[in-house]
Amino acid sequence: MTDLVINNAVVVTSDAKGSVIDKGGVAVENGRIRQIGPADEIAPVAAHAAKVVDGSGHILMPGIVNTHCHAADSLFRGLVENLPLEPWLQTVWQAEGAILNPDTSRLGSVLGFAELLLSGVTSVMDMFWYPFETVAAARQVGLRVSTGGIFFDPAGVTALSIDERVAEARRFFDEFAQAEDVFAASMPHGAYTVSPENLKAAWAVSHECGGLFCTHCAETRAEQLDIQTRYGRSVVRHLDQLGCLDERTVLAHCVHLDEEELDIVARTGAHVAHNPMSNMKLASGFARVPEMLDRGINVSLGTDGPLSGNDLDMWMTLRLAATMHKGFTGRADLISTRQAFDMLTINGAKALGAEDRIGSLEVGKLADMVLVDVKRPHAVPMFDPMTHLVYSTNKSDVRHVFLGGEQVVRNGELTRMSLDDTLATVEDMVPKIAATIA
Amino acid sequence: MTDLVINNAVVVTSDAKGSVIDKGGVAVENGRIRQIGPADEIAPVAAHAAKVVDGSGHILMPGIVNTHCHAADSLFRGLVENLPLEPWLQTVWQAEGAILNPDTSRLGSVLGFAELLLSGVTSVMDMFWYPFETVAAARQVGLRVSTGGIFFDPAGVTALSIDERVAEARRFFDEFAQAEDVFAASMPHGAYTVSPENLKAAWAVSHECGGLFCTHCAETRAEQLDIQTRYGRSVVRHLDQLGCLDERTVLAHCVHLDEEELDIVARTGAHVAHNPMSNMKLASGFARVPEMLDRGINVSLGTDGPLSGNDLDMWMTLRLAATMHKGFTGRADLISTRQAFDMLTINGAKALGAEDRIGSLEVGKLADMVLVDVKRPHAVPMFDPMTHLVYSTNKSDVRHVFLGGEQVVRNGELTRMSLDDTLATVEDMVPKIAATIA
Ligand SMILES: [Zn+2]
Ligand SMILES: [Zn+2]
Repeated sequence: MTDLVINNAVVVTSDAKGSVIDKGGVAVENGRIRQIGPADEIAPVAAHAAKVVDGSGHILMPGIVNTHCHAADSLFRGLVENLPLEPWLQTVWQAEGAILNPDTSRLGSVLGFAELLLSGVTSVMDMFWYPFETVAAARQVGLRVSTGGIFFDPAGVTALSIDERVAEARRFFDEFAQAEDVFAASMPHGAYTVSPENLKAAWAVSHECGGLFCTHCAETRAEQLDIQTRYGRSVVRHLDQLGCLDERTVLAHCVHLDEEELDIVARTGAHVAHNPMSNMKLASGFARVPEMLDRGINVSLGTDGPLSGNDLDMWMTLRLAATMHKGFTGRADLISTRQAFDMLTINGAKALGAEDRIGSLEVGKLADMVLVDVKRPHAVPMFDPMTHLVYSTNKSDVRHVFLGGEQVVRNGELTRMSLDDTLATVEDMVPKIAATIA
Repeated sequence: MTDLVINNAVVVTSDAKGSVIDKGGVAVENGRIRQIGPADEIAPVAAHAAKVVDGSGHILMPGIVNTHCHAADSLFRGLVENLPLEPWLQTVWQAEGAILNPDTSRLGSVLGFAELLLSGVTSVMDMFWYPFETVAAARQVGLRVSTGGIFFDPAGVTALSIDERVAEARRFFDEFAQAEDVFAASMPHGAYTVSPENLKAAWAVSHECGGLFCTHCAETRAEQLDIQTRYGRSVVRHLDQLGCLDERTVLAHCVHLDEEELDIVARTGAHVAHNPMSNMKLASGFARVPEMLDRGINVSLGTDGPLSGNDLDMWMTLRLAATMHKGFTGRADLISTRQAFDMLTINGAKALGAEDRIGSLEVGKLADMVLVDVKRPHAVPMFDPMTHLVYSTNKSDVRHVFLGGEQVVRNGELTRMSLDDTLATVEDMVPKIAATIA
């Protein structure tokens, strides 16, 4: 029995050949893609499908993978602006400390994940204080999430000892190791906030449990200088020497790497989550993405948190990833359309160790799919579908989103929940949040 | 008699004090703002107004001013990608030459202007081959336009002699000197495509007619080198020496200026139209905007054409203008929220010599206004309305647009025309356009 057929769309697959089907579709069974092909091959299947969606006038593409986020910080978006980085961070942390608890974290995560899903993001790697709440929020909204126990030596919001953090990380791995919608990870915040011993402890628990390992890395010059001063080596060399880099590692940012550090990342197979908007707004700089790609490093995209955006817009991230390196290097031919689109989709799946399940439209993969309206005045005419997605489309063109074949966004609205209460609750909190930094 | 009242909105005025009214509105009479203030002062007027719009849940802001565009190139968006600049330009010109005539130019302009108006742009400075068609398109869609006779020494699309170009420019000034919806200009393409004599001729006709003068300036290093080689001086010095710089001049790009050139621009009062997306995508570089602002240069924003975007998104332009200079200089406190928002609105009005009529919500000005939805999940909560507009809002949040008090966009749709035929006609042209470069 076919559960779902989507047909008559332009299908942009993100498969290894970058295949595009001018008019075609997919058939879905038990949450997975059973068939993909031209419209006339899919049409006969539609006759016996439980649900049929007409994709005319739309591009059908894989669900987007956001590989670096702190969604719950949505509660604070736009609270602090126009400051240099250091006083900005101090002010933000003051607000976070005063407001965050498991309930508010979940509330903020629901808000952020709703924004992401409505824009076509079906998987997100999210680092935040209460990982069990993060999963609950993701399930409520309807997307897959990579998260897990956070490691942070200062008290932070949760004020746990290292033993408690290891125990929490292990509990998380135990609970979600088998889940199809969770990619469990250890999440040490960064080499500047987690000691070498505790980085190793975080690594050990993720390694033992077969999970991912995700950390901020070389985001700013100040961070590089700090680690160099403390440990006599740069951030990437430090992580490498601690044994924390392999193909299960996702490094967020990597803005300030020298040649040898690029080589180390390439050699170890660690993944880089590139966050162009955050890197611009926080004045961190321009990551050496073209050189990373030349070396075969897997580069995926992230929004970072909504404090450095101030939204979670993977389409703007995509546009920036495709253009900023051209501007920075003076080379208009760097970062091809195909490379940019792969960063948005399949490279994200690789970073999550899940390229066998998500990141492209291929037979056997989970049916995480997005229908994008291509008839809007900002995006007509269309000569090449992938160019259209990279350079003309924006998040408001996302009409329908499917997660494992389940329609989780219909005509730009969530199907699993109404957002009305969430938005009202968050708006009611505005005076209280504003007062924390007054 | 009051024609229109909009009340109960958050009003972001862009006036000289950057005033924001937490809950307020405007009253409009004969196309101009007669009153602006808190909701309880506006409410009594509403009782006698011909039309009342409730602005609850919205920000009311001035219409956006896009100061550099080639809207009709929408016909070619995404046609050519992944090439270095020079072969890219040659290919684009090949397509333009084969397709453009007065009818197709007007069609492309309607498409581009529709996109702009739907995103809240109520005035645009647009350089294209058939200026009378450009005005016709703007009037059909419903926005103000600054355009006029183009000067281009190679044949280009229209293949006019210099005398014919001067005559066309003069005819344009004569026809539109009094129009409230047209800001007439001479538009020499650039110092690298227009000889010194012809630049002077373009200047003379605009000066004589009291119009604007707009040209591309120092967009790329290659252009600077070319002008230096040919004339022994840089582009800005060249234009200055020809007497083409004063407060009626709008210079598009100004990416590659040295200190003295910045000083020259500041001294002459010429305006700079900053096009961050185009400058990134075409690998032109990063304009020295913070230093321009420090010197008191009036910097406004532009999308450039949809070949270098590939859309006409002033909200993305705003976000880039607010963030890219932070990233490029390493200074997170450069380009304040207020500076960025002024570039989007009042600075654009100044560039068009029209700050007495447009660019802010103030009594006596034309009622060019935008209502922006602030209740969407990517933009809740809101702490500061201007921060919200710069860093969280996008073009899809624009709900209603008013031009001189006339509602020209209602719930995201044009009111003066339906776009269906335009979109269908453009889509039918796709094979023909694609064939021009095959
Ligand atoms: Zn981060
Ligand atoms: Zn231009």
